[in-house]
Amino acid sequence: MAKEPKLALIPLGGLGEIGKNMMAVRFGENILVIDCGLMFPEEEMLGIDVVIPDITYLLENKDAVRGIVLTHGHEDHIGALPYVLKQLNVPIYGTRLTLGLLQGKLKEQEVAGEANLQVVKPRDTVTIGPFKVEFIRVSHSIPDAVAVAVHTPVGVIVHTGDFKIDQTPVDGEVTDFYRFAQLGERGVLVLLSDSTNVERPGYTMSERVVGATFDETFRQAKERIIVASFASNVHRLQQAITTAHRYDRKVAVIGRSMINVINIAHELGYLHIPEGTLVELEEANRLPKNKVVFLCTGSQGEPMSALTRMALGDHRQVEILPGDTIIISAIPIPGNEKLVARIIDQLFKQGAHVIYEAVSGIHVSGHPSQEELKLMINLVKPRFFVPVHGEYRMLIKHADLARSMGIPAENIFVAENGQVLEFTRRSGRIAGRVTAGRVLVDGLGVGDVGNIVLRDRRQLSQDGILIVVVTINRELGQVMAGPDIVSRGFVYVRESEQLMEEARQRVKEALEKCNDRGLSEWASIKAQVRDVLGKFLYEKTRRRPMILPIIMEV
Amino acid sequence: MAKEPKLALIPLGGLGEIGKNMMAVRFGENILVIDCGLMFPEEEMLGIDVVIPDITYLLENKDAVRGIVLTHGHEDHIGALPYVLKQLNVPIYGTRLTLGLLQGKLKEQEVAGEANLQVVKPRDTVTIGPFKVEFIRVSHSIPDAVAVAVHTPVGVIVHTGDFKIDQTPVDGEVTDFYRFAQLGERGVLVLLSDSTNVERPGYTMSERVVGATFDETFRQAKERIIVASFASNVHRLQQAITTAHRYDRKVAVIGRSMINVINIAHELGYLHIPEGTLVELEEANRLPKNKVVFLCTGSQGEPMSALTRMALGDHRQVEILPGDTIIISAIPIPGNEKLVARIIDQLFKQGAHVIYEAVSGIHVSGHPSQEELKLMINLVKPRFFVPVHGEYRMLIKHADLARSMGIPAENIFVAENGQVLEFTRRSGRIAGRVTAGRVLVDGLGVGDVGNIVLRDRRQLSQDGILIVVVTINRELGQVMAGPDIVSRGFVYVRESEQLMEEARQRVKEALEKCNDRGLSEWASIKAQVRDVLGKFLYEKTRRRPMILPIIMEV
Repeated sequence: MAKEPKLALIPLGGLGEIGKNMMAVRFGENILVIDCGLMFPEEEMLGIDVVIPDITYLLENKDAVRGIVLTHGHEDHIGALPYVLKQLNVPIYGTRLTLGLLQGKLKEQEVAGEANLQVVKPRDTVTIGPFKVEFIRVSHSIPDAVAVAVHTPVGVIVHTGDFKIDQTPVDGEVTDFYRFAQLGERGVLVLLSDSTNVERPGYTMSERVVGATFDETFRQAKERIIVASFASNVHRLQQAITTAHRYDRKVAVIGRSMINVINIAHELGYLHIPEGTLVELEEANRLPKNKVVFLCTGSQGEPMSALTRMALGDHRQVEILPGDTIIISAIPIPGNEKLVARIIDQLFKQGAHVIYEAVSGIHVSGHPSQEELKLMINLVKPRFFVPVHGEYRMLIKHADLARSMGIPAENIFVAENGQVLEFTRRSGRIAGRVTAGRVLVDGLGVGDVGNIVLRDRRQLSQDGILIVVVTINRELGQVMAGPDIVSRGFVYVRESEQLMEEARQRVKEALEKCNDRGLSEWASIKAQVRDVLGKFLYEKTRRRPMILPIIMEV
Repeated sequence: MAKEPKLALIPLGGLGEIGKNMMAVRFGENILVIDCGLMFPEEEMLGIDVVIPDITYLLENKDAVRGIVLTHGHEDHIGALPYVLKQLNVPIYGTRLTLGLLQGKLKEQEVAGEANLQVVKPRDTVTIGPFKVEFIRVSHSIPDAVAVAVHTPVGVIVHTGDFKIDQTPVDGEVTDFYRFAQLGERGVLVLLSDSTNVERPGYTMSERVVGATFDETFRQAKERIIVASFASNVHRLQQAITTAHRYDRKVAVIGRSMINVINIAHELGYLHIPEGTLVELEEANRLPKNKVVFLCTGSQGEPMSALTRMALGDHRQVEILPGDTIIISAIPIPGNEKLVARIIDQLFKQGAHVIYEAVSGIHVSGHPSQEELKLMINLVKPRFFVPVHGEYRMLIKHADLARSMGIPAENIFVAENGQVLEFTRRSGRIAGRVTAGRVLVDGLGVGDVGNIVLRDRRQLSQDGILIVVVTINRELGQVMAGPDIVSRGFVYVRESEQLMEEARQRVKEALEKCNDRGLSEWASIKAQVRDVLGKFLYEKTRRRPMILPIIMEV
């Protein structure tokens, strides 16, 4: 009897975390990758710009990688590509808007020329190695989002990407219920489904709800309107533009990323802007207050964004005026709550009327709540279920939900990044582990900031640093200059002269003791200085600055 | 005609922020202070332990300060006293539990001996200088909380402290509606009211709701139960203990602050513990799993707390077991969301069943929602209204709410810390400003960490530091040793040897250029090194570490 063919699903990102989504599908010597996203750094990753998946596994199997398919154009699904493509140049498949947004990013990072981009449409099927990959329309907080069905020799894998079930999407492009149902009817081996909102009961509201809130707000506003939103939420931007046009207002766009998205989406036909509605900022500033809407970035309180600058009175072209109506059409991403609250406070202080998360219908999520997740499971009727895109507790809750719908517990896998899920037509198991993890990007450095550097930054951030410099002559066995102590981030020196002078004396005494023994062992001199000074400072201040002894030899 | 007497209300903390509540009431040369709280540091206050109010104004008027009255025993109302008492030793008035908790804190900081503590009861009136101060029972998330009515020659001031309207409080001590209403009927000049929850419509649920949830959860739990809560929420602890007793479980308490509160509250009679219910941790660990409840700290994911240690498998005496039911009876304070989420994930990973904020009735707030705020205004019927205890947007919303109830806009003051609100019997106005602000406490240092130190810590935390040391002999005009470069928190040196060597070369060249001009101007040498190295590193890494040139002279 021939050996049963096996298929491996290997999550390289997005499990046990929100962001840097990446899933490898392997059959024999063929690997297909679904998405290639980045993640924003956790609070303790001091100084880090972005985090991308560790693709060691793909690089070790470079010749097997047949292509990367993208589900949609959000950063957490495409954002690692500018880095990954430098090491792994394979064909990339995605819908027009997704690839349009990707191309913008690749140009910024100067890797556009090398990329092999293949445009696909929903219901297209492309052959990639032994896989037939089909793209299936879903709704999400960005247009042109798709799920993918991967037809493999072992069975069909359905990966939802990010989705919601919007029965009345702004662009009229409803989720392709028929294809999901048809696949389900014919038999799906594994469903991988978005867990982001699994903690929410019921249904996620339609994006159109926000349009109704915009209408109500625009109708009542007597002066200027400022709408802050995610740059990539083209549906949201569309609704703001349509509503502005309805109330005879012009629209000016502020913020580089939003201008980029609007240009790309408009050019590709995903954004419909009535003739003459869009104006330059200078022109908008000359219009009567009740004739203008500003669309801007900064809904997350990002320090350099348009809204933050305006709130702090720091924007060159727009200042907040009493009477302005400001709509923050977003909710804070976990971790940004305090940033956003501070911006709202600042806007109120400038006399604006601010409409924010407390108001119902000012924002809706792009991810499915529990009833939508159930619908997806009932459409696809998979044999095996793997929750993806979520922190650990969300994966657990999504697994519970699947079990409550009749999928046997042994057919559900709550996995971690790097675990190898191996399937035959009939069985599934966790079959091992490959390298997976986080690569930190800081400036131009990709992966050069590791735990030691982060630990140092952490210590430096808490209590600062004291540098003790001394010049010695080993032959003479003599201190030639110093010890000098310089501190940064410890105490304000002008108020602590006495403390620093005392510290210098302690170091001096320690050096003299060492000198009795010959000033020869640098390592032990350094350890001695660190020890004496650390104890002294802790006793005096209850702080533990980093202490860095430097010995110069002449 | 005699000059009309004037009364000043001067907020020294708690306005435009959550925490460090402090309000001065001044009549002539008499100052009464209401509350003296601390605040936990904002994210950008790197290394800071706590923040206390700047009391310069009180110190400048030291002889006028007659006393401090406390509304309840939470940190944000009493926590600055250990620092303030060292500079301003005046009588302190509070209820028994409030002063009991305060005394514990004073002992820890070794200032207990000096304090003059005066116990009061609800409905007591004490004379403090020209003020008659009356204490009025309110409900809150700690027992023995009071509002204060200050009877002054100009009129009655009512300060709610923190409150909620709990119609079925756990201890049966209902808010003293009669006294609020009687004061209102006779005429109140100014109401100062808690704005923390003004964004929430409706009513805040009764603390008893949590008891019902505990009952349901305890009834279903088959193995161990672990309840994490705020240490100071004695009502919550009471309900956990009562429910444990009902289901024949023993209770062990974990976490120093919770043990402290339970001891004090028990000793003073605020906590009723059935005989034999409380056991030591060692004993609890020997009991059958269905016979024990652990009460612990860590509901905010605090790094050193009991729950965090357990979640990370780092607690010496308790490890999480599959089958444990863990109740996190709190919601994350803004800023703690990610910390708490991470702990929940860890607990799930250990196989526990975790009940957290998503579950209704697992926590209720201690602050009043909109309908309760309206009730307070209707009871007290003040002439003037000042929203307190809240960030700016909350004060604005509370002012809007008061206006919607018929208080004229010109009688409502949204003030900032340090503003002087001056009232006569008939009029109110903002009459000036005194020193107010934040004093940062870091270890033993109170106020010695200022903006320069914080700015340095910020830079160090982002990109680390490079120290360039060179020993020169000015007479010889010669570099004797170095330049050496040492870095911390920049890049992991082993992987960047080439970069660091190149950097050293650049510095060397810069020094040689300086040498041509004589090596005499240290300041200009340092500036030169900083400039050359900064540009080089930014070009190579897009990072901006702190660059610290140190020149030693032999």
